[in-house]
Amino acid sequence: MKYKFSHYTCSLCGKDYEPGEVTYTCPKDGGNLDVILDYEAMKQKLTPERFMNLPEASLWRYLNLLPVDDPGGFGTPLHRAGWTPVYQPKRLANKLGLKDLWIKDESPNPTASFKDRASAVVVARAMQIGADVIVAASTGNAGAALAGMAAAIGAKAVIFAPKTAPPAKIAQLLIFGAQVLLVDGNYDQAFDLSIEATQAFGWYNRNTGFNPFTAEGKKTAAYEIWEQVIRNLPEHNQKLTVFVPVGDGNIISGVHKGFKDLHALGWLREMPRIIGVQSTGSAAIANTFDQGDEIIQAVQANTLADSIAVDLPRDGVRALRAARDTGGTYLTVPDEDILTAIAELGRVGIFAEPAAATAYAGLVKAVHQSIVSPNDPVLVLSTGSGLKDVAAARQAVADAPIIEPVLEAVKKVIK
Amino acid sequence: MKYKFSHYTCSLCGKDYEPGEVTYTCPKDGGNLDVILDYEAMKQKLTPERFMNLPEASLWRYLNLLPVDDPGGFGTPLHRAGWTPVYQPKRLANKLGLKDLWIKDESPNPTASFKDRASAVVVARAMQIGADVIVAASTGNAGAALAGMAAAIGAKAVIFAPKTAPPAKIAQLLIFGAQVLLVDGNYDQAFDLSIEATQAFGWYNRNTGFNPFTAEGKKTAAYEIWEQVIRNLPEHNQKLTVFVPVGDGNIISGVHKGFKDLHALGWLREMPRIIGVQSTGSAAIANTFDQGDEIIQAVQANTLADSIAVDLPRDGVRALRAARDTGGTYLTVPDEDILTAIAELGRVGIFAEPAAATAYAGLVKAVHQSIVSPNDPVLVLSTGSGLKDVAAARQAVADAPIIEPVLEAVKKVIK
Repeated sequence: MKYKFSHYTCSLCGKDYEPGEVTYTCPKDGGNLDVILDYEAMKQKLTPERFMNLPEASLWRYLNLLPVDDPGGFGTPLHRAGWTPVYQPKRLANKLGLKDLWIKDESPNPTASFKDRASAVVVARAMQIGADVIVAASTGNAGAALAGMAAAIGAKAVIFAPKTAPPAKIAQLLIFGAQVLLVDGNYDQAFDLSIEATQAFGWYNRNTGFNPFTAEGKKTAAYEIWEQVIRNLPEHNQKLTVFVPVGDGNIISGVHKGFKDLHALGWLREMPRIIGVQSTGSAAIANTFDQGDEIIQAVQANTLADSIAVDLPRDGVRALRAARDTGGTYLTVPDEDILTAIAELGRVGIFAEPAAATAYAGLVKAVHQSIVSPNDPVLVLSTGSGLKDVAAARQAVADAPIIEPVLEAVKKVIK
Repeated sequence: MKYKFSHYTCSLCGKDYEPGEVTYTCPKDGGNLDVILDYEAMKQKLTPERFMNLPEASLWRYLNLLPVDDPGGFGTPLHRAGWTPVYQPKRLANKLGLKDLWIKDESPNPTASFKDRASAVVVARAMQIGADVIVAASTGNAGAALAGMAAAIGAKAVIFAPKTAPPAKIAQLLIFGAQVLLVDGNYDQAFDLSIEATQAFGWYNRNTGFNPFTAEGKKTAAYEIWEQVIRNLPEHNQKLTVFVPVGDGNIISGVHKGFKDLHALGWLREMPRIIGVQSTGSAAIANTFDQGDEIIQAVQANTLADSIAVDLPRDGVRALRAARDTGGTYLTVPDEDILTAIAELGRVGIFAEPAAATAYAGLVKAVHQSIVSPNDPVLVLSTGSGLKDVAAARQAVADAPIIEPVLEAVKKVIK
């Protein structure tokens, strides 16, 4: 087998592993593995211009920078993951007093969340290693993404989700034909159970913060931010600040990895500053960051932002570094602020689920605390569609009046 | 004011009106108005090649063929309406014995349905004529689309929806900041009430089958089908069959108009055959088609496909012609078949709401009745995301088992 990457490196102990030597985490200490590309060889062959204006409207436009082969499935949703729009909501920018604000909206992904990126790349990896069944534990989005990407090419998926996942996410899992096991427990229990089952049944496991290829999928968002935004910034002000919602820490790690790849290739002059935002009710990583510590202490997660409700983050160490190594920070926001953020994004036509709106809530806080300045170019990652959790959305806005179908009733309501 | 179209023609009596002479329907007989472009002038200035490989990834790529100016809002969701993917689900094609099958998926639209097309163009029209408030009656999708497109550029929207609209659609209306009036009645009552209120308050009305610009937005789907599919068909077999779900008849009329535009410009050799599909429980147009009649009789709509549940279709006459004039037909499918279609589309990674899956259910019926042959190239329009109506989706699939978080419980379920 020919590998498209050089080796793995353990993010804890720094030990290197050959591509064929390990599958998930470091055998020594359980640390997450970074997939290391052969940057020198790539520099010889590739130029940044090569990635501009490609017709491929998906993350597969960056195939040359990914550690997997093209999985096929052209003309299926698998070839529509990624390459999401960046919006420039001027009214929000004005309100916050920012000169340049972008929101990258992940809703148009095939299963309506950021997680399609990880699942697309893991499905490609599964095909390369001949895995028949792909399994994942998920609060909903990662599972729906795996189910959808697997369905696109006819692969089999098994999903462990907490039985409390929002109805829309469970519906997606079932509709995409995955085998779904609703666990009478929380995400962390579903996670552990899925690993046990993976070993018992010889499946291939996609779990976030466990399978090294999820971050390789998620890094494509950084490539897009580079192509869509950073390369168009003025020469003198290219330091972008990026706000990322954080649960188990894998999205922020993936985004960091993407920027590091580009930096290693010499295509990105200034590393963006990465700011992680957690819900106050699920702030394990932010707590550790505040304490200047390295070891993540579990919390008892309690937040309406279900996608980032995590007791023990599985990718916490790399998530800490994403902020530390880039001059960023961590912020926490309470559920009330997340609901307010949902409503504010809605007013400019962006419908975000609670976890997705968390990053914007963090930006609001950062502006008030002068963590970002008016001239800092800022990008907020909105990781999933509000249609994923309608019950939460309804808490963000007042109910509508019910009226009799007569004009008099309208007149009473319209002033 | 300079107009980008030549005149209106009433679809019933054939009378022409100047662009500034009328606003909604024919003053004589209430017929829907067709917006007629100056095809001869366009032929002089434009070539089909001009519309290929444009960077604008929205329906605004066809600005030169639209009767409105660019509404601005670049970098907002308004500039992401349309330009949706076409999938080629090979497993479904094989199952149906079809050589070429495309599904055009409207889920990635900003508000996750086809209706963004109409709303984007109506918002552009509203800006041109200086309208402050745009109002619509809607079963949900059209309203959400108007609310979203208006929010994108800070315009005010008022939406009349039946109080029975699915929760996800009502949530969208509220989140996008529209003024929402939930009518204690059905769609038809909401429709009439919205017209009354439009007159009483001097608003601009977007209602489907009333405002002539909705069809002008919807026609862009036909342009995309032409660019994405028809132009790539082999010379000898360019007659595409297009399946469209039909409620009030405005989508099928719009799609027909788009193909007619292209034909008038000499850019489309063969008009596609258009097949309308209605739910058996809401089949007013199909009934009239079967009777060879011209006058639509109202029904009492009763179907789970809420987006196409309509007692009296408002664009029935043009909807009949879309099928008659193109050698197409109308088919009806019961709710059970719609649910089966949702599940079958899900298996290839496409999550459609009931109305959207109705077109695919119609294709299945058409294959069984030999209305399409194995060599006929076929495209199915899937008009909205399944996330819009999760309760219906759950009826399409079996529930998932709930298990204790222990391996033994997994073993019992996985055989």
